[in-house]
Amino acid sequence: MKLKIAKNELNEAIQHVAKAASSRPTIPILGGIKIEVTHQGITLTASDTDISIQSFIPVEQDGNIYAHVDKPGSVVLPAKFFVEIVKKLPSDQVEFEVNAQFQTQIRSGSTDIQMVGLDPEEFPVLPSIDENESFPIPGDLLKAMIRQTVLAASANEQMAILTGVLWTLQNGELKFVATDRHRLASRFATVEAPEDTRFHNVVIAAKTLVELSKLVPEHNTPVDIVVADNQVLFKIDNILFYSRVLDGTYPDTSKIIPQVYKTELVLDTKKLTDAIDRAYLMSREEKTNIVRIVTQDDQSIEISSSSTELGRVTEQLEVGRMSGDPLRIAFNSKYMLDVLKVIDSEQILIGFNGAMSPIVIKPTDYEHSTYIILPYRTTG
Amino acid sequence: MKLKIAKNELNEAIQHVAKAASSRPTIPILGGIKIEVTHQGITLTASDTDISIQSFIPVEQDGNIYAHVDKPGSVVLPAKFFVEIVKKLPSDQVEFEVNAQFQTQIRSGSTDIQMVGLDPEEFPVLPSIDENESFPIPGDLLKAMIRQTVLAASANEQMAILTGVLWTLQNGELKFVATDRHRLASRFATVEAPEDTRFHNVVIAAKTLVELSKLVPEHNTPVDIVVADNQVLFKIDNILFYSRVLDGTYPDTSKIIPQVYKTELVLDTKKLTDAIDRAYLMSREEKTNIVRIVTQDDQSIEISSSSTELGRVTEQLEVGRMSGDPLRIAFNSKYMLDVLKVIDSEQILIGFNGAMSPIVIKPTDYEHSTYIILPYRTTG
Repeated sequence: MKLKIAKNELNEAIQHVAKAASSRPTIPILGGIKIEVTHQGITLTASDTDISIQSFIPVEQDGNIYAHVDKPGSVVLPAKFFVEIVKKLPSDQVEFEVNAQFQTQIRSGSTDIQMVGLDPEEFPVLPSIDENESFPIPGDLLKAMIRQTVLAASANEQMAILTGVLWTLQNGELKFVATDRHRLASRFATVEAPEDTRFHNVVIAAKTLVELSKLVPEHNTPVDIVVADNQVLFKIDNILFYSRVLDGTYPDTSKIIPQVYKTELVLDTKKLTDAIDRAYLMSREEKTNIVRIVTQDDQSIEISSSSTELGRVTEQLEVGRMSGDPLRIAFNSKYMLDVLKVIDSEQILIGFNGAMSPIVIKPTDYEHSTYIILPYRTTG
Repeated sequence: MKLKIAKNELNEAIQHVAKAASSRPTIPILGGIKIEVTHQGITLTASDTDISIQSFIPVEQDGNIYAHVDKPGSVVLPAKFFVEIVKKLPSDQVEFEVNAQFQTQIRSGSTDIQMVGLDPEEFPVLPSIDENESFPIPGDLLKAMIRQTVLAASANEQMAILTGVLWTLQNGELKFVATDRHRLASRFATVEAPEDTRFHNVVIAAKTLVELSKLVPEHNTPVDIVVADNQVLFKIDNILFYSRVLDGTYPDTSKIIPQVYKTELVLDTKKLTDAIDRAYLMSREEKTNIVRIVTQDDQSIEISSSSTELGRVTEQLEVGRMSGDPLRIAFNSKYMLDVLKVIDSEQILIGFNGAMSPIVIKPTDYEHSTYIILPYRTTG
């Protein structure tokens, strides 16, 4: 293998794939980046077996020459050092030359690096996925759906399936659900999927979705999604992102969301967020994060929290609309803040069915999101 | 105590003093901020006994009214919660009312906070310092002198005196020295001190100087310095910053700095930094950070590092000027980078006296800084 390549393009591609290289590999090859060179271009791949990311740099695109290939071939280089050194190379051009023992020479300007390369035959093989059943989704929408659901996924690896987000697709409606049994987030959207494309119980690790989200550019790049048996493939420009689907059956959450409420409040999202945030500061001192909401007679609510050592915070908040029974309820203010931060609606509706029943939070501007928080059972 | 005060001014003053409040106080009062209110203004103080910071908000300044005092008095409030809640209060105005048991009510807009206050009589008394012997220093110069010396102070609390920076003043020349026995940084400057103002063996903790540096504004505010027996006082606008002087005698470093060199190199600072940085990346894998410099016959040097697992980095670097004996030397590249990052000179001079003697680094643009790094004694 021998080639010359533009440093900036190489660096960008490496940064993309490096996220999939294992930082503490069980075997050295999983901490590496595979470089495959053909006369068409350079393919970089990293994989920790849960996720795999592949990026392709064409030899030439839109009249720009990115690489000059003298001799095709491939090698695996340790990711950590490789990622950092390429960023810092002195020249715009980087030359690679790999011998039969995978000893790799990297030259750029006055810098000469000898690296101990690994045999690419030992690198994990990427899953083969039938790409017939793909559907596109606008990048911005995918990022929003991820941001608005991952907050409710469990961080507890003991409940493996709940560390993921459940994806379903039916009649062109894509739906994400996440829950850690204390709270739930649900978000749907209409996508341009072929009528017969449908799936159930596709669960993708929340942390994988967060990584995927970072790879999707801010402008509205379309992302193509292919769901296979135990893998999902995302195609973003020249990047392929493979994620393993979590094993197990996701619990049925369809009957958890109440459809009617005994008490309904419509509130200004920003004002509620600020008030809960202040009460949270006090509640945090007690570790429990308990904040109370008590409805008042005058179209307002009182939000409060207390700490035996520090004191008490009390907030009066005007309500846009209030109907139903008076209410006194306690909940985890951190969970409430997590929800309020991802709602892009000026007003929200909160529905209650007494102090012991799930609290429902919905944006008033649109129908596509629903959040649930279980209340604390407290005395007094 | 009862008053109304502008939130922004209060918040700014709190942020300044909060750095001196102990984050893990041995007694609760040391984790507090003392608020003293008179008809002239509000004084905020925090102290962890090593450092104390005081900030004053006048009732009125330059025609702006910052506070309205109904009743003077004082109280100590727990810093952590107080610092965060003031930032987030909803109104531009904040009202305080403190009762005889130091129970404190804070009101702002629709927010009502009850805090358990502490008795200000229990708060540490600030050192009384005779301010006759003060001298001014431009803020930018003080910040530069701190930045250019703290890097060489020891992080090892076992060698307490070496965790500080030695200050001396004589004939209007202020000098800072720091060393951890492996490297040394020295920086001097001429200041406008009265002729008879002089001191020796004033050692201030490096971490204290870093905190002080953050309080000095970017624009060229003068800082007044008063050195007393075991305290140094810094006056910056409305802020007083007190630092304890470290106990013990600082080692004599005056004879360590070589005045003549067997080998001299003049190098481009940026190019050397980049080359050492790449070699450092490889050397870091071996934990030792060993990088070698070998002079070449052709007015250049070779910089190299190696790792048994990863490979080897070799850099060729042109030398602006080279004189004296050929040289082969090994050193800690992290120490060299620390020095190169704080030198504001396009070129530097490096002086050597063989592979076993201290390496001297000096900016070529000015005389006021000198750095020393001890080499590694390696074989081959």
